[in-house]
Amino acid sequence: MVIAIDIGGTFIKIGLVKDGIIIEKTSIKAQANIGIEISLAEVEKIIQSLLSKHSISFNEIKGIGVGFPGLVDSAKMKVLSVNDKYNDAVGFDFVKWGEDAFGAPLFLENDARIALLGEWKHGAGKGKNNIVMLTLGTGVGSAVIIEGKPLIGKHFQAGNLGGHSIINLNGAKCNCGNRGCVEAEASTWRLAELLKSDTRYSGSLIEGEELDFKSLFKFAAEECDLSISVRDHCLNVWAAGVINMIHAYDPELVILGGGIMKSADIIIPFIQEKVDKQAWLPWGKLKVLPSKIPNRSALLGAYYLVTTNLKFNN
Amino acid sequence: MVIAIDIGGTFIKIGLVKDGIIIEKTSIKAQANIGIEISLAEVEKIIQSLLSKHSISFNEIKGIGVGFPGLVDSAKMKVLSVNDKYNDAVGFDFVKWGEDAFGAPLFLENDARIALLGEWKHGAGKGKNNIVMLTLGTGVGSAVIIEGKPLIGKHFQAGNLGGHSIINLNGAKCNCGNRGCVEAEASTWRLAELLKSDTRYSGSLIEGEELDFKSLFKFAAEECDLSISVRDHCLNVWAAGVINMIHAYDPELVILGGGIMKSADIIIPFIQEKVDKQAWLPWGKLKVLPSKIPNRSALLGAYYLVTTNLKFNN
Repeated sequence: MVIAIDIGGTFIKIGLVKDGIIIEKTSIKAQANIGIEISLAEVEKIIQSLLSKHSISFNEIKGIGVGFPGLVDSAKMKVLSVNDKYNDAVGFDFVKWGEDAFGAPLFLENDARIALLGEWKHGAGKGKNNIVMLTLGTGVGSAVIIEGKPLIGKHFQAGNLGGHSIINLNGAKCNCGNRGCVEAEASTWRLAELLKSDTRYSGSLIEGEELDFKSLFKFAAEECDLSISVRDHCLNVWAAGVINMIHAYDPELVILGGGIMKSADIIIPFIQEKVDKQAWLPWGKLKVLPSKIPNRSALLGAYYLVTTNLKFNN
Repeated sequence: MVIAIDIGGTFIKIGLVKDGIIIEKTSIKAQANIGIEISLAEVEKIIQSLLSKHSISFNEIKGIGVGFPGLVDSAKMKVLSVNDKYNDAVGFDFVKWGEDAFGAPLFLENDARIALLGEWKHGAGKGKNNIVMLTLGTGVGSAVIIEGKPLIGKHFQAGNLGGHSIINLNGAKCNCGNRGCVEAEASTWRLAELLKSDTRYSGSLIEGEELDFKSLFKFAAEECDLSISVRDHCLNVWAAGVINMIHAYDPELVILGGGIMKSADIIIPFIQEKVDKQAWLPWGKLKVLPSKIPNRSALLGAYYLVTTNLKFNN
């Protein structure tokens, strides 16, 4: 039995996973601005209720796998750096929390990396050994598998900063200190400002509506001029981000996940066409696929993380 | 004895290397537009004269190492793709050429990758195992070493396309089919157009002069407004390209090489400052260094390529 936790900017997902199957899962609203310590206290209570519901005792828990939205030292199980979310997580002792709460070893990894582990072993990436994944959501995350191994890098951040690829040199200011990063140009945290700062906002169809990507795609389909141009901007930004990842890592497959991919029917064909036309691919055609198990990839990735670290059967 | 050949867009360098020491080197003007077959016929003659000058017989030649400015399949020793240089190189049988001309095994690799191999073993990268190198010249090349190994990728192109990282979404058209690639925004092939297409060109100090980077830096220092703004644009483009490489590969060191680095005294401090301020480096300070052996890195890298492939003593 493995406890799987996916800490996101908007939701925290929690699951109990046994033999590669999620036997129970739930999620709570994230309170990223309040911090990791208070959030995990709530997570602990929820897990305890799940465990007692299934009559699972502590000694059945082999480990805890946690995905975190920031840079993670997955050797020391520490958060190295955050970007305006869970600011108290740097320095927080996750391992001690797992030990105190459940008496089990805890393994920590970047959230995009565990989502990719899940897709690789159970989803869209099955059977491939060179994969790039981007998650489009509150921010833009990324992770990479090259030659059958997650790319980690000297300081644990290789492959994770696809959202901070600069694609618009003189573009919008990003939380990270650069200008024109993929996520500063097109992500949920940036969308409202993209719309509101446009002179066409006042009097537009989308004015006063929920300013998320679901709305944006809806109003663009209803011929709202502003929504169309912001939608097209975002699609072009993501396409450039995907092409930069392809040029950087030479994958055989790109997977797109994250909350914004609820509109995969619009996003995937656009990006596939851009990749077909513009990416440098002398070897052939590279497929861009949506996450196949969007609600399970992170939890199954967290499970895989625990099993590979403890080397028990996956 | 190893024959080392570095095929560039502007020059072809040729060297004889023994026990890691270049005993003789020369270079000829490249004829990239004419093609690889005619160019190599000339290279062959030059090598024959070098060999006879040093009284070296064919049976002393252990191998031939060749760097090529394009994507290279370094398992099959074939050029996979070129970008407006040596268009007949795709499909050309380099191994047969080496066999026919010198009766020796030939090993082919991307030019930026062999330059990095040289810097890694003999130059600025000595002792480091996670390095990104960019070469600023006719085009912009790149190569990467991660965890002590050259990054190759599924189709041999990982790490080599840093010049085609899109840093200006709506920018200048690149030969590769994208817009706003690093080399389309700032490289020797692009510079003349950058200057001439500006309304300030006519009547500027740089008008009618040689439109290369040496001139650009000179006239910028002499307060030519156009030269200053084009120089600053190029510096910012390279800085964004370097930051994208840092974010992609998580290196401990960045090396900058290529002909434009004759102006390293201006380029390095600018990019170092940008990296210090804007790259996401929670672990500490990352050094940006110029190539330490700019005239020897590719030849010594080609030598290393041969020795590691033939597994004789380096």
